[in-house]
Amino acid sequence: MPGQTATRTDAAYAAHLDAHDPLARFRDRFVVDDPDLIYLDGNSLGRLPRVTAALADDLVRRQWGGNLIRGWNDGWFDASERIGAKIAGLIGARPDEVIVADSTSVNLFKLVVAALQARRGRTRILTDDLNFPSDIYVLRGAIDLLDKGHRLEIVPSPDGVHGPDDLLRAALNGDTALLTLSHTVFKSGYTYDPGALTAAAHAAGTLTLWDLSHSVGAVPMDLDAAGVDLAIGCTYKYLNGGPGAPAFLYVRRDLQETLGNPIAGWMGQQGLFDFGLDYRPAAGLRRFLTGTPPIVSLSLVEPGVDLLLEAGMERVRAKSEAQSAYLIDLWEAILQPLGYTLNSPRDPRRRGSHVSLGHAEGLRIDLALIDAMKVLPDFRAPDTIRLGLAPLYTSYRDIHTAVERLRDVVAGRLYERYSDTAPTVT
Amino acid sequence: MPGQTATRTDAAYAAHLDAHDPLARFRDRFVVDDPDLIYLDGNSLGRLPRVTAALADDLVRRQWGGNLIRGWNDGWFDASERIGAKIAGLIGARPDEVIVADSTSVNLFKLVVAALQARRGRTRILTDDLNFPSDIYVLRGAIDLLDKGHRLEIVPSPDGVHGPDDLLRAALNGDTALLTLSHTVFKSGYTYDPGALTAAAHAAGTLTLWDLSHSVGAVPMDLDAAGVDLAIGCTYKYLNGGPGAPAFLYVRRDLQETLGNPIAGWMGQQGLFDFGLDYRPAAGLRRFLTGTPPIVSLSLVEPGVDLLLEAGMERVRAKSEAQSAYLIDLWEAILQPLGYTLNSPRDPRRRGSHVSLGHAEGLRIDLALIDAMKVLPDFRAPDTIRLGLAPLYTSYRDIHTAVERLRDVVAGRLYERYSDTAPTVT
Repeated sequence: MPGQTATRTDAAYAAHLDAHDPLARFRDRFVVDDPDLIYLDGNSLGRLPRVTAALADDLVRRQWGGNLIRGWNDGWFDASERIGAKIAGLIGARPDEVIVADSTSVNLFKLVVAALQARRGRTRILTDDLNFPSDIYVLRGAIDLLDKGHRLEIVPSPDGVHGPDDLLRAALNGDTALLTLSHTVFKSGYTYDPGALTAAAHAAGTLTLWDLSHSVGAVPMDLDAAGVDLAIGCTYKYLNGGPGAPAFLYVRRDLQETLGNPIAGWMGQQGLFDFGLDYRPAAGLRRFLTGTPPIVSLSLVEPGVDLLLEAGMERVRAKSEAQSAYLIDLWEAILQPLGYTLNSPRDPRRRGSHVSLGHAEGLRIDLALIDAMKVLPDFRAPDTIRLGLAPLYTSYRDIHTAVERLRDVVAGRLYERYSDTAPTVT
Repeated sequence: MPGQTATRTDAAYAAHLDAHDPLARFRDRFVVDDPDLIYLDGNSLGRLPRVTAALADDLVRRQWGGNLIRGWNDGWFDASERIGAKIAGLIGARPDEVIVADSTSVNLFKLVVAALQARRGRTRILTDDLNFPSDIYVLRGAIDLLDKGHRLEIVPSPDGVHGPDDLLRAALNGDTALLTLSHTVFKSGYTYDPGALTAAAHAAGTLTLWDLSHSVGAVPMDLDAAGVDLAIGCTYKYLNGGPGAPAFLYVRRDLQETLGNPIAGWMGQQGLFDFGLDYRPAAGLRRFLTGTPPIVSLSLVEPGVDLLLEAGMERVRAKSEAQSAYLIDLWEAILQPLGYTLNSPRDPRRRGSHVSLGHAEGLRIDLALIDAMKVLPDFRAPDTIRLGLAPLYTSYRDIHTAVERLRDVVAGRLYERYSDTAPTVT
């Protein structure tokens, strides 16, 4: 940069990083109405890809309005498999190992029940207390429903930030039916090594089920190499699929025909138009479909996945690591002195694509950021401000500006105008 | 009509009926790209309301692209309840008795399991062989999963057209946990009297669960007056909600807090942002939500429901009855001599809003209609051509033209060019 030597905390350095960012051009592929709005909540709801906006119009006006019922033969019927096959390319799975349908929780329910039925006789289910709470609700619900004496064991994190890897490994035994974890945990962003834990689980004859919601599209993984049995994940975070877009599920190829779908439905059977009264599950992964998927929401998932495939997960991950390291540098220099704590792992190998900062005034800071500072992070009780970094559209300038505004809110005590009301829904 | 006396089989008589149709003006509220295409498959996928096309654009570009995560506080979060409350107005339910989420099959699964848990100790589930096959798959799946010795009894229709009302009533006893039926059955269009059967069920202490998919938006009902316990239904047929749009479920108010949702999830709990590891079900019907609903597909359900509320279900039903009677008149005069049979009830009180015609060459006729005649009906194996009448946009001219083309296909043996390949997906 001519005329000056940038230090790592200068805005000029952020501009320098943006100028050398091989993924910078992808930002223009998204709708960004207000460039001054710093959006760091792509880990809750990803931005709208431009091509998705055009697709929505085509889907509704031409495919539904014009083609009417014929749309089923022109792309709708195989959308769950077609988009699943593309997502497979982001997570190291084979194309026929991923399918899109239903919500994350419904998919989790299906696979948990299938896994427990497949390991009949074993009674323990293992998870940690960093897992997403509703994943735990689904587990408890499945246990109650099956009424076979299963017990859920929730292994505690040592510090609320890092996963209890060693305790989990030690807890595995011949009575453990299932080990299920979030690959990247929602609060701290801690990221497990699925290969190491899956190998340990398999040594005990235990199936593994990974929730990839906070990883997919930001943290690459190789499910097949890791030997993972089952996985689920959401499409509206880093995949940019749109609010509440349907989720995906992964079942390793050799398990597909040995597991049953507890919610048998029309879309998961052989011979859809036979209308026989006996259910015959479809071949392969399609048996894990249930009812008709929400075609508009489902179809809008595809362009966001295409963008990630075009960018390449290795480049996405490299930028994510660089951006989270940059944010942590700025935190250390600028925010730590103001009472912000780092609630995410420092080891980049164990960190997903969001950075969590704690502060005693976390909720009021969050409200001030949204209301007065044009920064959209999100908040997780009791004190965590999550800053999500979406490599396809988050710029280094975004990060630098966000840190300046986080600084100003506390330095100028701007949060004092806000009270502890309910946080926004994110 | 000047200069001639119309007979009931003339095109002029159809035009006369259209001219006196108080709902005729609603056709212009829908996108009709090709007026010569006779669309009689609104009982599979309803047409696109014009306002829905505009809403889709707003949803994607402004609400998602512009509002980003803030959309949750601006209509998304309460969409399931808001749209459910409107659907309640079409089926004689109170606003807090209907909610929209998940697919019909997933909702059916939730309510079947909840009902069986609530009638613990009873082992019989009663249905008929006219029920939609995948409803039966869901029942069988729930029975296997619960593993409590439940038995499904499928009472046969006397003729494949009419429901076995008397046999069902006689089969109810103190061991019957659940009676579940399609209100209007998918193949013949037979429509049950939910009040009579529900009263008989209640006398035996049996819960009732009605699938309203082929009724809602075409056949009015009064769930509260009938004392119905549970219901589900689809939104993409006569509600015109779009392909695979999420389904609704109904739980009578006094049952809501006594039944449990077997797929507990984030959206169905109290205190969404407490992130506690223990599930506390939300008050009222919201506990039957599970994961995040597909917001774009969900939101697009609303305008179609609004149109039906504006038209009024009594007028919709009056037109539906008049149109199906008119179609049966034309069948009798024109199509019966060509080998078409009537596979729907003649009693209008027992007939929904589609008319099924059988023919030995049914599948090839269906293929010819779609390919060469610009008529879109649908086909149900082995021989049934279903003609769906959607009172908001089906005209009497549509019906007359369809009958002429059905006549021509057989009279001119045009179906002979087609072979028995797989039917279209509808």
